[in-house]
Amino acid sequence: MTNRTLAHGEALRLLDSVTLGRISFTHEALPAILPVNHIVDDGCVIVRGHRGMDAVLKEAAGNVVAYSADVIDHETYVGWSVTLTGQAEMVNDPVEIARYPQIVRPWRSHEESFVVRIEPVVVTGFELLEPGEQTTGAR
Amino acid sequence: MTNRTLAHGEALRLLDSVTLGRISFTHEALPAILPVNHIVDDGCVIVRGHRGMDAVLKEAAGNVVAYSADVIDHETYVGWSVTLTGQAEMVNDPVEIARYPQIVRPWRSHEESFVVRIEPVVVTGFELLEPGEQTTGAR
Repeated sequence: MTNRTLAHGEALRLLDSVTLGRISFTHEALPAILPVNHIVDDGCVIVRGHRGMDAVLKEAAGNVVAYSADVIDHETYVGWSVTLTGQAEMVNDPVEIARYPQIVRPWRSHEESFVVRIEPVVVTGFELLEPGEQTTGAR
Repeated sequence: MTNRTLAHGEALRLLDSVTLGRISFTHEALPAILPVNHIVDDGCVIVRGHRGMDAVLKEAAGNVVAYSADVIDHETYVGWSVTLTGQAEMVNDPVEIARYPQIVRPWRSHEESFVVRIEPVVVTGFELLEPGEQTTGAR
């Protein structure tokens, strides 16, 4: 297995190729992770949270968070992983919010949702390849 | 889509049914996430890290971390997610370490690895079901 570091743009393109990721933040001074769905919009990651179970996520807005998505085969471990770190903020402008319900698909119907934008400062990623395998780039 | 909370034992059994998860910890005062592989051993999560790219993970040992695994369909969002929080510690006893190389499969060959044990204090999880779908319990 070889390991190739992804460039910034390539990492963001791979992140944009999936809609499921995990946001990591500090909650009551402890690390927390939540699986959420996302889109990439104008270089930012837009995450949708749901009131109730994701209430803790609202507390993350205004703070620095990490966001991570990966596609890694559970058998071969071939795949890629992208992680970014940046400031999270609630999107409160109704015009902006209106752009996202169509593109960030809700997991749990009948639940009010909210939108968090993460502006990446650091983007890192790697690709795990079988020896001799060609990179697929942004697959 | 309905959402069912998992009991502690059920959550650990689901975690034990996969070998890929994400560890979240604080690195240089910022949240960080790394995909790693794991086993569940005697109620603890055993994670294998690789020197080099996972060097930051070694700094997490001795601190509280979150660990999360999920199996969520990228199309339907049906699936489950389990997250636990607990103290991470390096496993330095060679006898103990010798138990794990056989069971925690290395992603990247030719790299020295190390073993971190997480003793869960809080275990939470949920299952996302289509309306009317039966729970599969520990599938």
